Amino acid sequence: MMYDWLNVEVLTSRARYIAYNREILDSILDVSEKIAAEKFGPLNRLIDQQEPAYIDGQAILPDGVADALDAYAASGLLAAGHDEEVGGMQLPYVIDMAAHSFFALHSISLSAFGMLTCANANLLMAYGSEAQKAAFALPQLQGRYSGTMCLSEPQAGSSLGDITTRAVPDGANYQAHTLGPRYRIKGNKVWISGAGHHLTDNIIHLVLAKIPDENGDLPLGTKGISLFVVPGFLVNEDSELDGKPNDIVLAGLNHKLGYRGIPNTLLNFGDSAGAIGYRIGNAGQGLAIMFHMMNEARINIGMGAAMLGQAGYKAALEYARTRRQGYLRSMNGTRRDRQQARIIEHADVKRMLLAQKSLSEGALALVLYCARLVDDKRTGGPVEQRRATVLLELLTPIAKSWPSEWCLEANSLAIQVLGGAGYTRDFPVEQYWRDNRLNMIHEGTHGIQATDLLARKIRQNNGEAFYLWVAEVRRTVSSCATTHTELEPFARQLEHDLSCLIETTQKSCQDSMFDLALAHATPYMQAFGHIVIAWLWLDVVRAVLDHPGLDASFRAGKQAAMKYFFACELPKSAHWLNLILKEDATVQTMAEDWF
Amino acid sequence: MMYDWLNVEVLTSRARYIAYNREILDSILDVSEKIAAEKFGPLNRLIDQQEPAYIDGQAILPDGVADALDAYAASGLLAAGHDEEVGGMQLPYVIDMAAHSFFALHSISLSAFGMLTCANANLLMAYGSEAQKAAFALPQLQGRYSGTMCLSEPQAGSSLGDITTRAVPDGANYQAHTLGPRYRIKGNKVWISGAGHHLTDNIIHLVLAKIPDENGDLPLGTKGISLFVVPGFLVNEDSELDGKPNDIVLAGLNHKLGYRGIPNTLLNFGDSAGAIGYRIGNAGQGLAIMFHMMNEARINIGMGAAMLGQAGYKAALEYARTRRQGYLRSMNGTRRDRQQARIIEHADVKRMLLAQKSLSEGALALVLYCARLVDDKRTGGPVEQRRATVLLELLTPIAKSWPSEWCLEANSLAIQVLGGAGYTRDFPVEQYWRDNRLNMIHEGTHGIQATDLLARKIRQNNGEAFYLWVAEVRRTVSSCATTHTELEPFARQLEHDLSCLIETTQKSCQDSMFDLALAHATPYMQAFGHIVIAWLWLDVVRAVLDHPGLDASFRAGKQAAMKYFFACELPKSAHWLNLILKEDATVQTMAEDWF
Repeated sequence: MMYDWLNVEVLTSRARYIAYNREILDSILDVSEKIAAEKFGPLNRLIDQQEPAYIDGQAILPDGVADALDAYAASGLLAAGHDEEVGGMQLPYVIDMAAHSFFALHSISLSAFGMLTCANANLLMAYGSEAQKAAFALPQLQGRYSGTMCLSEPQAGSSLGDITTRAVPDGANYQAHTLGPRYRIKGNKVWISGAGHHLTDNIIHLVLAKIPDENGDLPLGTKGISLFVVPGFLVNEDSELDGKPNDIVLAGLNHKLGYRGIPNTLLNFGDSAGAIGYRIGNAGQGLAIMFHMMNEARINIGMGAAMLGQAGYKAALEYARTRRQGYLRSMNGTRRDRQQARIIEHADVKRMLLAQKSLSEGALALVLYCARLVDDKRTGGPVEQRRATVLLELLTPIAKSWPSEWCLEANSLAIQVLGGAGYTRDFPVEQYWRDNRLNMIHEGTHGIQATDLLARKIRQNNGEAFYLWVAEVRRTVSSCATTHTELEPFARQLEHDLSCLIETTQKSCQDSMFDLALAHATPYMQAFGHIVIAWLWLDVVRAVLDHPGLDASFRAGKQAAMKYFFACELPKSAHWLNLILKEDATVQTMAEDWF
Repeated sequence: MMYDWLNVEVLTSRARYIAYNREILDSILDVSEKIAAEKFGPLNRLIDQQEPAYIDGQAILPDGVADALDAYAASGLLAAGHDEEVGGMQLPYVIDMAAHSFFALHSISLSAFGMLTCANANLLMAYGSEAQKAAFALPQLQGRYSGTMCLSEPQAGSSLGDITTRAVPDGANYQAHTLGPRYRIKGNKVWISGAGHHLTDNIIHLVLAKIPDENGDLPLGTKGISLFVVPGFLVNEDSELDGKPNDIVLAGLNHKLGYRGIPNTLLNFGDSAGAIGYRIGNAGQGLAIMFHMMNEARINIGMGAAMLGQAGYKAALEYARTRRQGYLRSMNGTRRDRQQARIIEHADVKRMLLAQKSLSEGALALVLYCARLVDDKRTGGPVEQRRATVLLELLTPIAKSWPSEWCLEANSLAIQVLGGAGYTRDFPVEQYWRDNRLNMIHEGTHGIQATDLLARKIRQNNGEAFYLWVAEVRRTVSSCATTHTELEPFARQLEHDLSCLIETTQKSCQDSMFDLALAHATPYMQAFGHIVIAWLWLDVVRAVLDHPGLDASFRAGKQAAMKYFFACELPKSAHWLNLILKEDATVQTMAEDWF
């Protein structure tokens, strides 16, 4: 996938990555896989069974978590993408993500500590002052500190414009501090992952808050939001911990369905004098800055969902290859064999395994494709940068939502392959299913992603991103049609569904259709996602056919998974799109008292 | 639904139900709902949090369970369907099921105790000797004893022909016992729900085992299976408990994803001298007898899944009506209102609620329709009996599988409506989702149901059941087309999909298509199920239109839910059927080493 499809080797000719070659990149991935398997894997059931406990105002995690996170940090991966001069590895992003993916595979919730810490530090490195980077970002990249994002409040979950956390300038000289303009923060934050523990020397919170005007009123809407870095323990002007706790109280923990290796908390800022925080960027820029990192976080959610899909698929495959049950039978009911069959031989089990392969490897292709775009956005030439930026804008809601929905389905199939055994804690698949259920919710729910796609992304700049992407799909289609005749029927099928999507997109952009289309935003996104995955599957198989030296079973497996997707999944897209095309108003006209 | 659609009042003119009228039936349902809400409802989270504990060879359940089950038994519902002379109520089955459904609504896993006990006693009442009825069935109907079904073994889950539990005649005079031919049972049973506890005075196990031949060899296959009643504590010839424990050991408990109010156990029979059991019916009849009750159990599974779907829908609806979040916006992004909207006002939330209504009420219609058929099978005239028997054969796999799959989807949508809150234990929806996940597995997995439908039910007697059902659907279609013109487009859509199903069914019955069709048995069953539900929705709405006196919101809601199903769900069926129609061989030709 990396080299024969995504041409990752091309990156090693770019100045930033000149130190790398395929051999080194491979060894980084191998080492990551090994550390993840050894340090995260054995803990994954324990952290589920012993969910974080709220004791004396702290979140207590099981023994072993601290060691596992230390090993993660020691791998150097937290800083992998950053410059060598700050201790980074200058690793291409697609390799960076692939290396992290092994940690997600072995424990999605433990890997979330690293994900949040990286995201936090990345934001500070991009938007923080030099002093803020030194005091708050570098210790995170080294694994000494960890990070959180504090957005939601009880009355403001998805609706961030309604936050009421206040940031008041800390005295007349509040601008005179080395670490940035200093404020006192007061407010309650909810759904904060990775807070309240003592696994690292310090926890750095990135907090959205509003600065009141001269009358004490908070500015309205999202444009009034500013961003602050708020350390758990205070840091002095030499960037050293001074040991004094900030005014932050862990008010409680959420008891979650899954994803239990990382505490999810309620935090009270400023119950006493106000928590000390330093503004990042300008007042009112908070949400814009936060969204910069949210976009990468969303691709990471997709990656985690894809790896949970993979984990379930591998577990189900292993079980199906060894468990014997039932007989293969002829039409008249007679047994074809005296011995019980391994269940992988039963057609319905094979179907469920092929579905999992098709869904989880399709999801993985999507997130790696997006990660590769991030590399072009960062280090490509101007044309590549523009293309990558625009495509990423469009594909981010898909990269977040599609794996979340369909790898959850794959996890349900993994349970089904194991039957009763899959419903017990003796096997990991039920946990994967519970863990994965979060991914359609956090970092913007499915509905939010769908609205973002339908009401914003496809409309921006007169559909610039959408039509650029259409051209990409058509490049694959025509390449398949001309150079690989065996792929022609699939190319034709894809072109047909693409045309249908284009027609639906144009229709949904008509003013008169706005409300109706919005009621079908999720089916629209589902159709869009299925067409994206079909395109990527076709492109992967095109690459596979171009490389006859690859292992024959690997090649055949990729082709079968692609065919499965075109036969069993892609046809759904036309049905979803029809809801808008046929102007179905059932949802829109549903009255509340009819429920 | 009961009176205006299913004509339940007709039943009260039948001799067996002559004591009932609508008022009495309604009051039975009201009382059942009240007891279930008061006694089961408050325990449902507790039993999930405190799963059964294995202590000193017993399964220990939380305080309160015994009282709740006593209240259930005191309601008289355990014996509701039986003759008055044995303490029953001679209640029509459709009312019996509806009364039980409230218990499933308030705690699916606690209601499973009653379900298993009823099923056990029903089997004994149908196939046991008078002495067996008196000793084992009546105390269950009175709630003093409870019951289990012991089918699976470690090497024989779905493949019951491979069980190795042995039943050896207990001495030369083994036939001379009042309670029936007496055997010593040895073997290990797994996945046994409702065993190992001390909530009732005794537990009656119905155990499948094989009687060895003169060489000590067990007969092969399912035809060698016999059925035994094996009490936990021995019973003397006067049907009284003699207090001596039988030779049965609780070897362990399964730790389940959900459905935790009832222990699921591993039982060892005959570790010492052999557990004493009495044969029911003839040797070799075991599976046939067991399947008699399995068919009703399967409809009950569907009912439980439907009620979980209902429970999630109600919880999501309540949340959506009160929770405020976000703003309704115009196309240019401006707010339509100053106050945050209640989330039910957001189109995507409304869509998810309507989907839940459509799926869970559709499922409920299906299981009630089947329960009504059971009444015709039991108390109808000869023509009605034949029709009901044949239709039930065909529809049982659908009644079991469709609610299990689609009300699970509804439960996932309930979580999604609540967002992050839905992912926590502060709300019940995550538990509904976990509880419901069992229903696609137990009492015959989804794949087993699909094979049963495709390889047996549609073929029996040259498709007698299938074509009888087709005629029923066409009766609804033509009645809608002639008397309710507003339903005509839906009738046409249904007729089109029905034709497609008929074509696919005929194709899949061709000898040359057997293996290919088997690989698509699950999609075939999904399509079949969707067409069944569409038919029932149309028929429900036809009945609603025939009763203009019904509440206007109720009528509008039913119509909207029907329209939703036809717009958003039914179109999937054509796609599923196409896999067989187009002879897609992707799954069939997948080789094991390509995974």
